[in-house]
Amino acid sequence: MRITDFGIRAGEGIPGKNNLITDVAGVKAGHCTIDEGNVHTGVTVVIPCDNVYKTKPVAAVHVINGFGKTAGLMQAEELGNIESPIALTNTLSVHAGLEGLVRYTLETDKDARTFNPVCGETNDSRISDITAMAVSAEHVQKAIENASEMFARGAVGAGRGTVCFGLKGGIGSASRQVAIRGKTYTLGVLVQSNFGAMKDLTISGDPIGRRIAAKLNGEKEGDRGSVMIILATDLPVDSRQLKRILKRCETGLVRLGSRLGHGSGDVVIGFTTANAMGKTEGIISHEILPEHLLEQPFRMAGEAVEEAVLDSMINAEAMEDLEGRTVHSLREFL
Amino acid sequence: MRITDFGIRAGEGIPGKNNLITDVAGVKAGHCTIDEGNVHTGVTVVIPCDNVYKTKPVAAVHVINGFGKTAGLMQAEELGNIESPIALTNTLSVHAGLEGLVRYTLETDKDARTFNPVCGETNDSRISDITAMAVSAEHVQKAIENASEMFARGAVGAGRGTVCFGLKGGIGSASRQVAIRGKTYTLGVLVQSNFGAMKDLTISGDPIGRRIAAKLNGEKEGDRGSVMIILATDLPVDSRQLKRILKRCETGLVRLGSRLGHGSGDVVIGFTTANAMGKTEGIISHEILPEHLLEQPFRMAGEAVEEAVLDSMINAEAMEDLEGRTVHSLREFL
Amino acid sequence: MRITDFGIRAGEGIPGKNNLITDVAGVKAGHCTIDEGNVHTGVTVVIPCDNVYKTKPVAAVHVINGFGKTAGLMQAEELGNIESPIALTNTLSVHAGLEGLVRYTLETDKDARTFNPVCGETNDSRISDITAMAVSAEHVQKAIENASEMFARGAVGAGRGTVCFGLKGGIGSASRQVAIRGKTYTLGVLVQSNFGAMKDLTISGDPIGRRIAAKLNGEKEGDRGSVMIILATDLPVDSRQLKRILKRCETGLVRLGSRLGHGSGDVVIGFTTANAMGKTEGIISHEILPEHLLEQPFRMAGEAVEEAVLDSMINAEAMEDLEGRTVHSLREFL
Amino acid sequence: MRITDFGIRAGEGIPGKNNLITDVAGVKAGHCTIDEGNVHTGVTVVIPCDNVYKTKPVAAVHVINGFGKTAGLMQAEELGNIESPIALTNTLSVHAGLEGLVRYTLETDKDARTFNPVCGETNDSRISDITAMAVSAEHVQKAIENASEMFARGAVGAGRGTVCFGLKGGIGSASRQVAIRGKTYTLGVLVQSNFGAMKDLTISGDPIGRRIAAKLNGEKEGDRGSVMIILATDLPVDSRQLKRILKRCETGLVRLGSRLGHGSGDVVIGFTTANAMGKTEGIISHEILPEHLLEQPFRMAGEAVEEAVLDSMINAEAMEDLEGRTVHSLREFL
Repeated sequence: MRITDFGIRAGEGIPGKNNLITDVAGVKAGHCTIDEGNVHTGVTVVIPCDNVYKTKPVAAVHVINGFGKTAGLMQAEELGNIESPIALTNTLSVHAGLEGLVRYTLETDKDARTFNPVCGETNDSRISDITAMAVSAEHVQKAIENASEMFARGAVGAGRGTVCFGLKGGIGSASRQVAIRGKTYTLGVLVQSNFGAMKDLTISGDPIGRRIAAKLNGEKEGDRGSVMIILATDLPVDSRQLKRILKRCETGLVRLGSRLGHGSGDVVIGFTTANAMGKTEGIISHEILPEHLLEQPFRMAGEAVEEAVLDSMINAEAMEDLEGRTVHSLREFL
Repeated sequence: MRITDFGIRAGEGIPGKNNLITDVAGVKAGHCTIDEGNVHTGVTVVIPCDNVYKTKPVAAVHVINGFGKTAGLMQAEELGNIESPIALTNTLSVHAGLEGLVRYTLETDKDARTFNPVCGETNDSRISDITAMAVSAEHVQKAIENASEMFARGAVGAGRGTVCFGLKGGIGSASRQVAIRGKTYTLGVLVQSNFGAMKDLTISGDPIGRRIAAKLNGEKEGDRGSVMIILATDLPVDSRQLKRILKRCETGLVRLGSRLGHGSGDVVIGFTTANAMGKTEGIISHEILPEHLLEQPFRMAGEAVEEAVLDSMINAEAMEDLEGRTVHSLREFL
Repeated sequence: MRITDFGIRAGEGIPGKNNLITDVAGVKAGHCTIDEGNVHTGVTVVIPCDNVYKTKPVAAVHVINGFGKTAGLMQAEELGNIESPIALTNTLSVHAGLEGLVRYTLETDKDARTFNPVCGETNDSRISDITAMAVSAEHVQKAIENASEMFARGAVGAGRGTVCFGLKGGIGSASRQVAIRGKTYTLGVLVQSNFGAMKDLTISGDPIGRRIAAKLNGEKEGDRGSVMIILATDLPVDSRQLKRILKRCETGLVRLGSRLGHGSGDVVIGFTTANAMGKTEGIISHEILPEHLLEQPFRMAGEAVEEAVLDSMINAEAMEDLEGRTVHSLREFL
Repeated sequence: MRITDFGIRAGEGIPGKNNLITDVAGVKAGHCTIDEGNVHTGVTVVIPCDNVYKTKPVAAVHVINGFGKTAGLMQAEELGNIESPIALTNTLSVHAGLEGLVRYTLETDKDARTFNPVCGETNDSRISDITAMAVSAEHVQKAIENASEMFARGAVGAGRGTVCFGLKGGIGSASRQVAIRGKTYTLGVLVQSNFGAMKDLTISGDPIGRRIAAKLNGEKEGDRGSVMIILATDLPVDSRQLKRILKRCETGLVRLGSRLGHGSGDVVIGFTTANAMGKTEGIISHEILPEHLLEQPFRMAGEAVEEAVLDSMINAEAMEDLEGRTVHSLREFL
């Protein structure tokens, strides 16, 4: 199901083949969902390429609001690359995300001795008992095994228990094409949506959230939770340029009504498959864009995030929270 | 003239007394406008308090997009305060802004030996011959002399020649009240608006820019120019918290349709009159907010910026650019 | 054993009572050392105060070189405080450090739902089989249980397997007093020393490392490994000022001969017990220093680091590395 | 005169042809010195290449201590390049530096409409009457005209009135070769030395400053002033890697005894002639180093700074300060 099925468009850009982050060639995504008693959480992974450890794709991070626990940012920033898949899970399970990535890397590359696992999180404690610490390294391994070009969206994996604009959030994805001098590049995002106050939700300029809040009569929560955004592209950019692109992901959130609230730990992690740092012999050649050609990627990053968040919401079914209240699906109101 | 005269509201917050940055007690703003032949530019100043050099109000900066020439940011960032008024002018006149501030500070405080003048800019070269280098230190002095609680908005001072969303930009201002435990604080902004592509302009969710572009048939410019935002408040915050508030000014820009384009050097400079660093003897006491109480200031910062940009536009008359084309006023389309 | 026993002084400052990080009132440190087969590693914790989660002491971080895997920095930077003890361990065990801190916080404060565990690391793989992943959450809990005002230094805890300037490194500590207007404050550091090339080691200006390298005939390793520095103080500073102090820790490393090499992931994490962010009701009052009074703390931070690294080395006995080569103790050459 | 004439060496690296920043092919440096009454100051420029505006060499900045007024850093950081020569002058003359660079660029390139002038400064008010504001745009133009491969060092240009470790400072320079896979690259620095407390001066580990202070009996000033460092190289690096190199310039300062004091606004600006951003058509190809090969450039950056500061001091004659006290030359004590 896509937002266009409801007559919604996020901008004027052209999506890639499947309108998914995996439209960037070589990228895979996968989930492991956990439903046990009061636990409704999971793990989602994005795998940039075959041997991330050896390839070291050029990467960047952008912290929109650092009220969060994401691990692995420091080295990505310093060295401009990542060397592991990116895992997403809940706030108190970052350790499990890291352990899973460490074990996976040690198993898949016998040369690996030191490397930087990257794990993000949002707080799904309204729907899931976060203190149960139910996520383990094995769940990460399963999410990696499940990873492929096609993957589920909605209330799955790390999005199993998330809440977005007071409605059911989850994992969403979208992609956009960028044409430069006759060549078509792709930029895709995957989000774990867990942010926003209901009354703020705005779709294509329509403040639908106010109407939903009025109808549901009683939604009072502020802009808590968080959103994790993973951006993949095959655009020829260096880490500085990529960081500039990541920064524009904010426009997608704000267009949906977000005020970038204090309690929302919002982080963007991005990589390009066009350039890498893994070569240890000789000089490395990178191709990058003349700076003004970033204009289109800037815009497409915002559009893709806007669509991906809505995508996570329309693909998520309503669920009960731990107090027995219904967390509705956006679908009910479209 | 205010946007409410046209039935427009930016958010739900309550403006301060005059809906101006000067609603923060002690703050003054003033202009010096230059119209000579092809030159249509000027200087605008914001004065935080009586002896800025000795007071050193707590300050912060947030660079939305660093494609700009603003001077004085490094020290404000390191020491968390400013020690001069803030001047705004055009891109190639930052030197004049600095010289004016240096001369002003030397004249007003005989102890001053080293201090950090702060000057921002946007590029008004569509309407004004920027290469004439017409701005001088004297214009800064005049703007300072003109500074008061009430000040003109629209195509004046540093906003004389600016273009915003393809329409006439200028200087705008707005303020919002923040109530915390029975006490009312004020947060005000002043903008020099010179950014945005016409087709992107959105007011309260309405994509009015597309209709204007269709009507004017031929507006093709991208998101160039820049916006300078000065934020003043009397909220008890330290420089770290203030920086977090400044960051949320972006939401005001994006709500108006901005995509935070590559060519737009967007910078926010802010100060609070509640805390200062000028005391050199003994220990300094600062009062600050528990972090979660920043939620309301975050939102109000975005609202105030949204309104201030529109305020700059509705108060600006149409002008001819250097090629004889009309740069229309937003007022014509409301 | 202290460096003064060998006639060495690091600067002219006056140490605190025990010349330890725990000279800052309320601070505790403790270890859990693991020796099993090829595994020689461990965990060291620094506990800032009684209920770190509720207190949220003002904190800052400074990344000297971000080639490392430390977790928890993002939030400390954004919110200017920490809310858990700080754990140190080896590179591939950060997940265990985090898990231990999460479990500890959940157990000690029933209100805790979301919080930011902070864990640093260095790579001890020359002496210890890092791929065995021998560290677990239980080791962290034990280190916390062991924490007290007095604690062992040398090849213990997270310093069990580290190598510093090609000699045996470990955990070291030192403190300095800072007198301001008749009041005495304390600044203390704890280091996990695992950096430096042998030929670079310099003590009080004497390039002793070259002589040691000549004598040992064959030391060829570069400046790999890393150093983690924890700084505690009771100085009245805000997070911005604290960050400036942390930055000067670098001078201690460079005075010992470090060139701040590429491979060395060097991170400083600091907190002050003088100011906190845990209060959620009403306005928070912070006392801070006039900026120029940071001069002495800057110098003392460098001195304390210089001494703490040497302290870690003279208290460490020689050990065999995994290839059977002796990693000598600095003591043999003094 | 070079430091080797006094038997001093800074590290083990091999200098370039002239041991100057201009050993990097295409780089020029020049001065304009002003001696009028109480004014003893000037301007020094470094010109990276022929048309800096069109070439836009890849650049980076590193702020060691942001207590300073350097202009032009924001854009260099955002876009990773510079587009004007770099000017150095005194603290209250940054405006003159900027104006000179603006006029120069407008005159030399008729296409120039907006560009980012870069100007650094230190405070030479002990020897020169800084409030006279004697520096003008014409002095910058003269410094540019005077620029060539060979240039004077010592108390000239922007170093005319500076004081370093309580002795006469000035402009100094040094270079180092870096051999990578049979190819020789060059890294050169130019410093404007105006920092350090006399008692801290250390040369090759010898605390000579204490002896000089004892002999002069009465030097009591702290670590005030600042140091500006310009680094040029032809190494194939991107702006992220270059920034990492610039960071290691600190090691040179600390090896000379600096404690990176609060009052010293220390800034490093660097560029590489190997990569540029000026191309506006098509894709840009950059060659960069595998990250571990930065180890040698890191070390050489520190060595070059260490030598350049000493170079500035041995080439400076003693002068009288504004109070009639002699500011001695380091040469008197070697």
